[in-house]
Amino acid sequence: MAAKLGILAGGGPLPARIVQSCLASGREVFVIAFNNETDPSTCEGVAHLWVPLGKVGTTVKRLKAEHCVEVVLAGPIRRPSFSKLKPDMRALKLLGKIGKAKGQGDNAILSLLVEELEGEGFRVVGADDLLSDVAAPGGIMSEKTPNERDQADIEIAARVALALGALDVGQAVVVQQGVVLGVEAVEGTDALLERCAGLKREGRGGVLVKLKKPEQERRADLPTIGSDTVRRAAEAGLHGIAVEEGQSLILDRADMVAEANRLGIFVVGIKV
Amino acid sequence: MAAKLGILAGGGPLPARIVQSCLASGREVFVIAFNNETDPSTCEGVAHLWVPLGKVGTTVKRLKAEHCVEVVLAGPIRRPSFSKLKPDMRALKLLGKIGKAKGQGDNAILSLLVEELEGEGFRVVGADDLLSDVAAPGGIMSEKTPNERDQADIEIAARVALALGALDVGQAVVVQQGVVLGVEAVEGTDALLERCAGLKREGRGGVLVKLKKPEQERRADLPTIGSDTVRRAAEAGLHGIAVEEGQSLILDRADMVAEANRLGIFVVGIKV
Repeated sequence: MAAKLGILAGGGPLPARIVQSCLASGREVFVIAFNNETDPSTCEGVAHLWVPLGKVGTTVKRLKAEHCVEVVLAGPIRRPSFSKLKPDMRALKLLGKIGKAKGQGDNAILSLLVEELEGEGFRVVGADDLLSDVAAPGGIMSEKTPNERDQADIEIAARVALALGALDVGQAVVVQQGVVLGVEAVEGTDALLERCAGLKREGRGGVLVKLKKPEQERRADLPTIGSDTVRRAAEAGLHGIAVEEGQSLILDRADMVAEANRLGIFVVGIKV
Repeated sequence: MAAKLGILAGGGPLPARIVQSCLASGREVFVIAFNNETDPSTCEGVAHLWVPLGKVGTTVKRLKAEHCVEVVLAGPIRRPSFSKLKPDMRALKLLGKIGKAKGQGDNAILSLLVEELEGEGFRVVGADDLLSDVAAPGGIMSEKTPNERDQADIEIAARVALALGALDVGQAVVVQQGVVLGVEAVEGTDALLERCAGLKREGRGGVLVKLKKPEQERRADLPTIGSDTVRRAAEAGLHGIAVEEGQSLILDRADMVAEANRLGIFVVGIKV
């Protein structure tokens, strides 16, 4: 039996999936839930503590008191303003380090946080170390397959996504007929897809490509898609979605594939 | 007296400024106005022809019949869908070349168009060859000056803008407190600024940086700002705007500076 797992629970359904999976296998968990970020259902029936995002010292102390050996960071966290963060001493120290770091994008911050947790003796694992079928497979998952135009669009989008990712800006890019319709920064993939619905040229077509940033700490914030992403891509009039094989997460893959088939969207795992 | 100028008039106020400047100096002009793109006031009282965007053959023929020697491409053109473009034979030939070009972003297309016009014997000039005070000067234009945090944000935004521009994606980037809030693709700078208003962290701060794409054909679609950009930047809660000295256009600079001073926004011309 694996040792107790500490779950730093960001938004979305991923943390709850990890909780469920651990409970199913009889593994103990302790959830750190962040005010205004974590879905409350994540904590139902399991040991947990609600904390403001800035309480890093409290979080570390409690995880130790709970004898957590492994820790996972799961689900996105929206970056708060400094005034809303209400940092404790430990968070202030971390912010000082972030200020001195080269980049100040999400990846720079998450890498420092992982380092900090490891410095405290925790073993930090990725969501895909815990959920056996969450990592994106290679190849076509849907009934629909990308056509030649889609393949060309995927290539362009992947090139742009990698360049952006190298600058720690965002993970997602939408391309249609060779034209980059939109590029993700802090607004997130959902807002990107909504905007692209109004920007694309008429007729169906276009692809969403979502890739890990080249230097990304892979134990935190891997690109994630699910049924919801498929629905939004369809609403935006796109042909399909490409993610990186083994370097992105798919929530409830069977559901997502069913939704993609229902909506006539392709989903493919590519190598970059 | 310079020879007759052919003006391919895209959207916004730049084409009208060129018309006014030519008329003031007694230079003859002929305006090609594009349906749904050109502001109708651009053509008032001057010789002109309205054409659908896809009528490249008609445009070339008419400019020759009008004995235009120099031609300027001024103002942005929204990229139409193929079905709306209704291309003539000449446009189809051009589209064939575009299909074979490396990139298919705006710059790739504009470069081919400039090449095409030069192949027909026209001399293609830039808006800043015609309007003496439209090129952005270096240094601070406003009363407000960028602080240290703004300078750091400008550096980050410029790095991202150049990387994006190299991929022919867009020209504008918004950064606040080291975080890239948004990146422009086809939505344009206005939509980018609107979106960033909802994404920034509270408190004033953040910069808009708008730069020429590194490989951009500089006679077409140089980054342009004006009073309206300043207003939208202020509405988005930003501190200021940076453009590239000599490589971007400022419409009605005196008005823009007055507006920047009224709203407490800085505007600076930088070297990159």
